[in-house]
Parts: sequence; C-alpha cells; structure tokens
Amino acid sequence: MRPHVLILFALLAVPALAGAQELPTQKLLPLALANEAASGAVAACSAGGYRVSVVVVDADGVVRVSLRGDGAGSHTLNSAFRKAFTAATFNRPTSAWADAIKNNAETGAMQHIDNILMAGGGLPIRAGNQLVGAIGNAGAPGFDKDEACAQAGIDKIKDRLR
Amino acid sequence: MRPHVLILFALLAVPALAGAQELPTQKLLPLALANEAASGAVAACSAGGYRVSVVVVDADGVVRVSLRGDGAGSHTLNSAFRKAFTAATFNRPTSAWADAIKNNAETGAMQHIDNILMAGGGLPIRAGNQLVGAIGNAGAPGFDKDEACAQAGIDKIKDRLR
Amino acid sequence: MRPHVLILFALLAVPALAGAQELPTQKLLPLALANEAASGAVAACSAGGYRVSVVVVDADGVVRVSLRGDGAGSHTLNSAFRKAFTAATFNRPTSAWADAIKNNAETGAMQHIDNILMAGGGLPIRAGNQLVGAIGNAGAPGFDKDEACAQAGIDKIKDRLR
Amino acid sequence: MRPHVLILFALLAVPALAGAQELPTQKLLPLALANEAASGAVAACSAGGYRVSVVVVDADGVVRVSLRGDGAGSHTLNSAFRKAFTAATFNRPTSAWADAIKNNAETGAMQHIDNILMAGGGLPIRAGNQLVGAIGNAGAPGFDKDEACAQAGIDKIKDRLR
Amino acid sequence: MRPHVLILFALLAVPALAGAQELPTQKLLPLALANEAASGAVAACSAGGYRVSVVVVDADGVVRVSLRGDGAGSHTLNSAFRKAFTAATFNRPTSAWADAIKNNAETGAMQHIDNILMAGGGLPIRAGNQLVGAIGNAGAPGFDKDEACAQAGIDKIKDRLR
Amino acid sequence: MRPHVLILFALLAVPALAGAQELPTQKLLPLALANEAASGAVAACSAGGYRVSVVVVDADGVVRVSLRGDGAGSHTLNSAFRKAFTAATFNRPTSAWADAIKNNAETGAMQHIDNILMAGGGLPIRAGNQLVGAIGNAGAPGFDKDEACAQAGIDKIKDRLR
Amino acid sequence: MRPHVLILFALLAVPALAGAQELPTQKLLPLALANEAASGAVAACSAGGYRVSVVVVDADGVVRVSLRGDGAGSHTLNSAFRKAFTAATFNRPTSAWADAIKNNAETGAMQHIDNILMAGGGLPIRAGNQLVGAIGNAGAPGFDKDEACAQAGIDKIKDRLR
Amino acid sequence: MRPHVLILFALLAVPALAGAQELPTQKLLPLALANEAASGAVAACSAGGYRVSVVVVDADGVVRVSLRGDGAGSHTLNSAFRKAFTAATFNRPTSAWADAIKNNAETGAMQHIDNILMAGGGLPIRAGNQLVGAIGNAGAPGFDKDEACAQAGIDKIKDRLR
Repeated sequence: MRPHVLILFALLAVPALAGAQELPTQKLLPLALANEAASGAVAACSAGGYRVSVVVVDADGVVRVSLRGDGAGSHTLNSAFRKAFTAATFNRPTSAWADAIKNNAETGAMQHIDNILMAGGGLPIRAGNQLVGAIGNAGAPGFDKDEACAQAGIDKIKDRLR
Repeated sequence: MRPHVLILFALLAVPALAGAQELPTQKLLPLALANEAASGAVAACSAGGYRVSVVVVDADGVVRVSLRGDGAGSHTLNSAFRKAFTAATFNRPTSAWADAIKNNAETGAMQHIDNILMAGGGLPIRAGNQLVGAIGNAGAPGFDKDEACAQAGIDKIKDRLR
Repeated sequence: MRPHVLILFALLAVPALAGAQELPTQKLLPLALANEAASGAVAACSAGGYRVSVVVVDADGVVRVSLRGDGAGSHTLNSAFRKAFTAATFNRPTSAWADAIKNNAETGAMQHIDNILMAGGGLPIRAGNQLVGAIGNAGAPGFDKDEACAQAGIDKIKDRLR
Repeated sequence: MRPHVLILFALLAVPALAGAQELPTQKLLPLALANEAASGAVAACSAGGYRVSVVVVDADGVVRVSLRGDGAGSHTLNSAFRKAFTAATFNRPTSAWADAIKNNAETGAMQHIDNILMAGGGLPIRAGNQLVGAIGNAGAPGFDKDEACAQAGIDKIKDRLR
Repeated sequence: MRPHVLILFALLAVPALAGAQELPTQKLLPLALANEAASGAVAACSAGGYRVSVVVVDADGVVRVSLRGDGAGSHTLNSAFRKAFTAATFNRPTSAWADAIKNNAETGAMQHIDNILMAGGGLPIRAGNQLVGAIGNAGAPGFDKDEACAQAGIDKIKDRLR
Repeated sequence: MRPHVLILFALLAVPALAGAQELPTQKLLPLALANEAASGAVAACSAGGYRVSVVVVDADGVVRVSLRGDGAGSHTLNSAFRKAFTAATFNRPTSAWADAIKNNAETGAMQHIDNILMAGGGLPIRAGNQLVGAIGNAGAPGFDKDEACAQAGIDKIKDRLR
Repeated sequence: MRPHVLILFALLAVPALAGAQELPTQKLLPLALANEAASGAVAACSAGGYRVSVVVVDADGVVRVSLRGDGAGSHTLNSAFRKAFTAATFNRPTSAWADAIKNNAETGAMQHIDNILMAGGGLPIRAGNQLVGAIGNAGAPGFDKDEACAQAGIDKIKDRLR
Repeated sequence: MRPHVLILFALLAVPALAGAQELPTQKLLPLALANEAASGAVAACSAGGYRVSVVVVDADGVVRVSLRGDGAGSHTLNSAFRKAFTAATFNRPTSAWADAIKNNAETGAMQHIDNILMAGGGLPIRAGNQLVGAIGNAGAPGFDKDEACAQAGIDKIKDRLR
C-alpha cells in the first residue's frame, strides 16, 4: 500500500499556527452545522428509501452528533461511528481502503485497532485544507450508497466550512 | 424506599394490546421529534449560558439522538446518556432518586448496574400514558438546571406525542 | 456484494404508521412467544442430538430470552446472541452472508462492528412484513443445522405472528 | 460483619465426593427446571402487576436462562443477572447484605468486584445442601417484592431439587 | 467444514444422569489436579527451553489455574486462556481448526465470539468420556510445541481422571 | 452543591469566535509543552521523594502525554488520567469536589460516569481564559501533594500559554 | 488520611541501582515461589474450612498465579486479583484502608480506579525492602481471615525472598 | 511459520540470575530514557513530515510513556501501544509477522488476543541480550516508515542500554 498512500497522507492538514507567540489553533465544527450535515445525510438516504444512522465526529474522532434513523438496524449507530472515526483519523474516505485490506494483510490488521472500520461510508469534513471532523453513514444497501448519503450531508454545509 | 416508590412504579405504561388476535404494539418516537426535543434542550441551556450535551433514547434505552453542545465537557455525553437510560428504564425523573440514594444503601447500590445514574437531568417522554423514550441533559451548573433544560426539550414536542 | 443485496434490503419492513395524527408503532414479541420459540429450537436440536444455546432478541437486537441448553458449550450463548442480533439488524438470515464475507473484504470487515457475526444460525422473526425480532441458534455441528433448529423454533409460533 | 456472616458461610455446600477413586461431582440444574423457575418468577410478579426480568445461573454464576418480561425496564436484565450471580457466589440471599453495606465500608466496597450487586431479589437454589444455582429478579417496586417473586420461582421446582 | 466436524461433535460427553430421581451431575477437576497439570505443562516447555503461560479451565471454560511462566511474554496468559476456553467449549483440540479457518470464512468468523481462539495449544481434559476441563499453552515457538506441552500437562494427571 | 458551583461553571471558557464568517477555533496545547508540564510534575514529586504518574490531556480529555514515573504504582497511570479527564471536563481542580462528594449523594453518583474521579491532583490548563487541557498527578502520599506537583508542572509552561 | 499514610508511602522500595553505568534492576518473583505462596494460602484457608481463591501478582500488578480453590465462589478470583493488585500498587496491606474509606470520601473514590479494591486480604510481598509482588485472598468469612491466609502463603516462602 | 520462528524465539533473553541465593532480576528502563526514545521517534517522524504517536512499554508490555504528536490521528495512540505491546511480548519487530499473517491462518488468528497488532512499527528495546521494553510508532505513511522512526527513537538511547 505504501506509495499511493503516501500522497494521501501528505494532505493531512496542519493546524493553523497564528503566530510564534500564540498557541496553534484548531477550527471547530459547531453543533448546528454538525447536526445539519447529519440530518442531511439521513434525509438523503431516506429519499432513496434507505434507513440509516449517521454520526458526525470532530477532528479528534469525538462524537458531536449521533442520529439513528427511523427503522435503521441496531448495528448502524456503531457502524456509522466507526466509519466517521476512521475517516477522521486517516483524513480520507473509508472507501479508499477497499483494495488495501484485500491485498495487504498488515493494512487489514489495522482493523484490530479500537474503532477502526475500513468500509465505505465515512468521509472527512474539511474547512479549506484543515480537517474539522468526519461523517459516517451506515445502513444503506451498498457501501457506495452510504458514501453518497454522507457526501449529501457534507454538501448541506460545505459553503460555511471556512 | 418502598411505599412511596410503589405508586410511581404503578404508573408504568402497559404497551397497547390492539386485540386478542394481534401482537401488542409499542409507540415509536420518530427521529424528527427526538432531534427536535434534543436540540430544544441544548438551546434552552444555551440561552441560560450553560454548555450541555443531550441524549434521547427510545423506551428501551436505546440511543436515537446524541448531541454534544459547543463547549460542553467531555463527560457530558456519557452523563446525558446514563440519565436518559435511567429515566427510561424506571419511567420516572432521575431527580426522584435523590433522597433514596442518600438514605437507602441498596438503592444506591443499583448504580453498579450498567448505565444507571441517579442524578437529576433525566426525564421520561410519554405519549399519553405510554412511555416512548427519555431525554437526558448534562453539563448545566446544577441538577435542577439540567432537568429544566430537559423539560424544555420535551415541551417542544409534547403536543405531538399521542 | 451490491446488486443482489439491494433487493434483500428493500424488504426491510416499515413500522406501521397508524395515521398522520399518531406516532408510528412497532409490533412487540411477547415473552411467552419468544420463550416458546427459543425452547422449540433447543428441543429441535436436542432431538437431533445437538446441544445448543438459543437467544431471541426483539427488533432492536435487545435480548428477550437466552437459554443455554444442557451440555451446550460455554461459547454458545454469546454466539447465539450475535447471530440473533445480526439477523435482526440486517433483517435477513445470517447464512446469507456466507459468500459475501469470502469475496468482499469490506463486508467481512463489518464483523468488527459490535455484536456482528456472519455465520449461519440466525433468522429474522416477522409478523407479516414487519420485523419483530430474531432468533439465534449455536452449538449444532454445522451452520445449516443451527439454522434448521432456529427455523423449527420460529415454526412453533409462526401462526400467532400477526 | 464478621461474626454473623461466619455462620452463613459455613453452610457452603461441599461438592459430593463419591469416593476416593473418583472425581468429585457437582449437581446440575437442567435447563427445563431453570426455565420453569424463571418463568414462575416472571409470572408471580406479573400476577402482582410488576414487570420484571429474571435470570437463573448455575452454581458458578454462569447464565442458564435470561427472561425479559413484557414491559420490564431495560436495566432489569443486567440487574437480575447481578443478583443471581451474587446469590450464587455467596450462597446466600442478596437481601442479607442490606445492613452490612450500610455499616461496613469494606463490605460495600465489594460491589466494585465484577458483577456483584448487594440488593434484594437474588436467592440461591439448592438441592439438599448443595448449591446448584441461583435466581435473580429485578423490576418489582421494592427489593422485598423482587425476592418474593424469586422465591415463587424456586417454589415451582423445589420438590425436584434433589 | 460440515461432514467431518459432525463426527467430532458427536463425541461431546453427556453429563452423567445418576438416576431418574436425581439431578444430573458434572465431574469436577480438583484444584490440586488442575495445578499439577498446569505446572507440568510449564515444566515440559521449560525443559525444551520455551517460556510459556498455561491456563486450566473447568468444563464451562471458567478459570481454575493460571500460571505465567518465568520470562513468558505478556500476551501468553490471555492466549493460553483463550486456547483453554476454546478447547473446552468445542471439546476438541484447538489445532483441529487449522484447516477450517483457512478454507471456511464462516468458521473463521467464529473467532469474533468472545474468547474464541482457533490456534493450536488447547486440549480438552476428559475423565473417561466426560469433559471435565481444558488446558491451554501459549508462548512456545510453534503451535505444535504448545500442544505438546499441554499434552504433557494432561499426562501428569491422566491416570487420576476417572 | 448548587450555588457555589454555579460561579465556577460560569468561568467555562468560550472557544474564540474569530468572526461571523469563520468557524470558531480552539487553542491547542503542543506536545512539546504538554510533555514539559508532565515531566515537570514528575520531577517536582520526585524531588519530594514521591513516585508518581502524570497524564496531560487536551481540552476534550483526550490523552496527549502519559508518563509513568520510576517506581510509581501500577494504578497511578489510570488514576492520573482520570484526574486529568475530570479536571478538563469540569474546568476546575478535582480537589474542588471534596466537600460535595461527602455531602451530596447525587454529586458522588457522578463518579459512575466514565473516567470521572473526584480526588485531588487534577488541574485545568488554561491559556488566558480558554481551557486548553488538564494535568493529572497520582501516587503522592496525599491528594494535596498530588495537586502541588501538578501545579509545578503547569508552572513550567504557564508563561507560554497564550 | 494524610499524616499516617505519608509514613507508609515513604517505605516504598527504590529499585536497586547497581551502578551509575548500568540500568536499575527489579527483583523478580519466580513462578515456583509465587505458586508455592498461592497454594499455601489456599491450603491455610482450606484447613480452616474456608473455600477461597488466591492470586499472586508481580510488583507491577501483573498476574503470575491465579488459583480458584475447590468450591470457592465465582466472584473470588476477581476479588483476589483486585486485592493483590491493590496491595502491590500501594505497597501496603489492603486492610490498612478500612478506616480511610469510611472517613474520607476522596479515598473511597479511588476505588473507581481500575482494579482497586480496598478490602482486607491483600498483602505486599517483599524481598528485604524491595516490593516483588503481592498476594490476594478472597472467599473466607471475614476480611481478617482472608488476610491471615494470605500471610500464611507468604510465610511459606519468606525465607527465600532476598 | 514454524521452523524460522523457532530461531527468533530462542533469542528470548533470560532474566539475570545473580546467584543461587538471590531472586533473579529484570533490568528496568528509566522514565528519562523511555521519554527520550519516544520523543526521538516523534521528532524523527516530524522531520519527515509525518504526524505520529509513540508509546514505550516495559518488558511486560506495561506503558511507561505515551506521546500523541501534534496533528496525529486519533487512532495512533492505540495503534502505537499495540505495536509496542506486540514487539515486547514476542521480543521481535512487529514487521517480522508480515508474511506469516498472510500465509498462516493460525498466526493471523493470534490478533484476536488482547492488544496484539501484527503491523510494522514496533521494535523491542534491549540492553545487551535482555529485553527491557519496546517502542511502537503509528501514523507514518507506511509501516516501514513507522519502523524507521521507532528505530530512530531507540538510537537516541542505545549507548546507555546496558
């Protein structure tokens, strides 16, 4: 997995250093935006007839919003959290690991780490280049559909992420 | 604790039996209402200058909505969940235990049961007589304030709980 | 896994909406029926000389009945719970995943989600089209035999599931 | 707690040694009897209008039967298990600790041990002098009522415990 | 995995029924024998220059003896427990699963069940046909060597297992 | 606990809102400063002859630095983490709870919340009015001594916290 | 608790520094001695008619030997481990906390730290002034009796602890 | 995996026996050296533009130092711990398992053991032939880069490891 991953990792945003005198800062995703994105993802999936749960975490993988949609299966909240956590900690879509976990046993082994789930449906949320959180969507009939709903959630707030 | 608790427990709603031929049913709290109540509780506390987390569970204590408010402490999400779980499973406000846990060691011992937290801020959500969920609020400067915000959340949706 | 799974997921039952004015409802599996099904599965396996545990959960994957049969191995209770939980949350037999976990690494990865076990022996319990719970059977010498006993348990109560 | 407890502990049954040549044996509670006792406790509480969960464990505190009654709170299954486990491991009713946990801090501290809950509702099940399991009842409005239902469950099977 | 496993499972010992009037019984492995077997396995491995941990469980997978040998790695106690638990619950050597977990994804999935580890070094302990416990050995340089030490431990006590 | 706590909570720092157009920000404690503070606390206690562990968390209670001092007891790392987590989430010294947990059962109950430990030795770390983390010190012979070492750690970096 | 505890803590042994050039060393308790002590404690209690479990940990609280005595309750292994862990980490008898947990809420709160149990029956094992491990005894009818058996176990090996 | 592993395991260091009369000893890694190594690894990775966490454990896999680097993902602390634990318990680099987990299902299964992670980035720390701890590095874009940073950390202290 090494060469192609290197580039993705290099995109990891550096927290803004506001000056030599001051502590660096991290942009925060307000609850209002986090809930709007999560609700948007649930609604997008619902429009497609899919019953899902959605979790939004901050840049550190800490939960800000968890929503269990009507009729969503009981595993979806945990699945959505793991996808959001995984997207945040690697700052890349969880679907990007699909080939690696098939072909590289060491990469697959990383799923023994707490909360890691390398299955599509998790996306990082960025304000410009800075990671500010991630969203995970679970319960749709296909990992690509989970990712599409997650993206629809981000789209609801993307113009205010700066 | 026995005599006065007996009355409270007797109020436990019986799931509606729709007829001898059919399975009994349980009313469900839709995500939209659950999120409206949770957001209402966060807003009510925010108006008072308090930074809180709010969790809404269904009648079985399973999470429907978790919201961590801006600036709320990192323990508040777990605290809010435990208050909501406790309010749902006993079908009574968590503040109702304040005297019992001081005076009755066996009652206090019940907090060793998974997820039980006997501290104010959790309230059952009912549709008529039937328990449909519970809300827990954590992070306000006083258990009474947590309960007041939780109540404000329920008030947002109470006319649609039937 | 995508195309063929889509159809299965589309069968997910919608909780009955009794009217615009009222909250939707979920049919409940009474303890008496749940225990009859669980005991029936244990008995069916016992008749075949298999020592098993059986768990029945509700539609949310919450335990209603757990039975550890005489002589059943110590792992069977956890295994039966996971099969029941998995059958309930996906609303499909756990045996339906056998090919997917072999051929699709992302699907296999889903077993890192809490309580998910993609091995035969778990079956959803439905009242008409509505999911009302699931049953998991563990300890028989073969996943197909576990599933057969689970089905025998459901058969005991199927005419009263409406 | 020391003097009066000594006597109770001295009653701990010695597993039968069938002879110098053979391994000692432990009597086992068959699933059929365990389920009958558990169902009897649920029914006794139900007759009193109480919605409870009941767990029966073997002499080692390992679960044989767990039943969550209709309408019983979501904490009751864990509470009933802890009461049953505690009754089995100490071979005495859990209500017997009520005074000790109030007056002796070290005894109260024992509730930090895994699964220990010193609150009424747990009773040992004995075949003659030998401990063969325990039953825990949770959800009734009062620890004495929980114990009464647990006793009712044992009474259903007591003439076959030999 | 189905056909060839069927035969192995059919060997599962039936707890002795001492008569229609009495409860069935389970033979118990006394601590003295359990410790002798565990110490024997540590000594056998030590003689080969291997630093290991050994765990002996009863027929229900409950720990009776855990020994961490001098210089044994910190994972060996958990590994030895899982091997002993797995050998007890399936009543067969853990090495018997080596082919199945390679060729059958559902069988491999069973390792997501609590405490299951399908790697050589765990052996059932039987008194005649009745399972009375199991032993797990971990830390030797090869699963076959772990199993050989475990067998050496059983050999120390086998003439007294009746 | 209500009146006097209200004032303390009102001091909770509001993350800086840099403007209506931009996301709010949180100041971050760089690893270099966190390690300097932690090492300073270990050194201060060591100078007093006390063997301690020290943990520094960020404003969200997430670990940045954990140090187990030479000869410090095995419980001290967990204790230091809990003190740091508790100081961060309440934004006040953990010693401030000493009276409340004695006199108010509901406050004491909050220690059933994950990671909360209301015992002296945890202090918030602030850059001006903004909480940027917390430090926990454990293992000194007295909660006041733990707090003094924690303060010594903060003192090492306080002039750079802006 | 402060003054009298200070003296006890001051006795914490300093790992031997063998010279400025070399790393410090920690004396290790060989498995043979650890098992002899544990078995001695079980035997001492058995002679008194008490059925107990005994755990010996190393100086870091890591398990070396766990023995569950014949007929000992299912909670005793966890209780014995916690007593041994607690005795090791504080390098003092667990019975020494009896007054403190009654009179000092902060000290009692320390039992929320992982594995801490402040109840009699745990004793440090020392080679001269250096802590080399601890022993915990659980299941006797009284904390003093648990401690006496633990001491009897140490006495079996004390002349070889140097 | 058997033959070639045998040789590696045979290198397991024997704790020094200082004489027939005295207990054997284990060399200890002082906190100062452990922190220097951990900080060195973070710095080495930082120089390469990689944001990582680093954990140093003692020979028993117990944490001595945990450092979460600036901007390192939230999974890296757990990953680094598991790599360090795994390197310590097997006394070999974690990268040495890459082939085995691909080709040997039983070896891969060992990752179900608590804390085991067979992915590159963990290295044992030795003083001469004696294992004194291990270091784990996580977050670099490639397991080989994680290992290189870990090695750089060891290099900072290697001349004082004797």
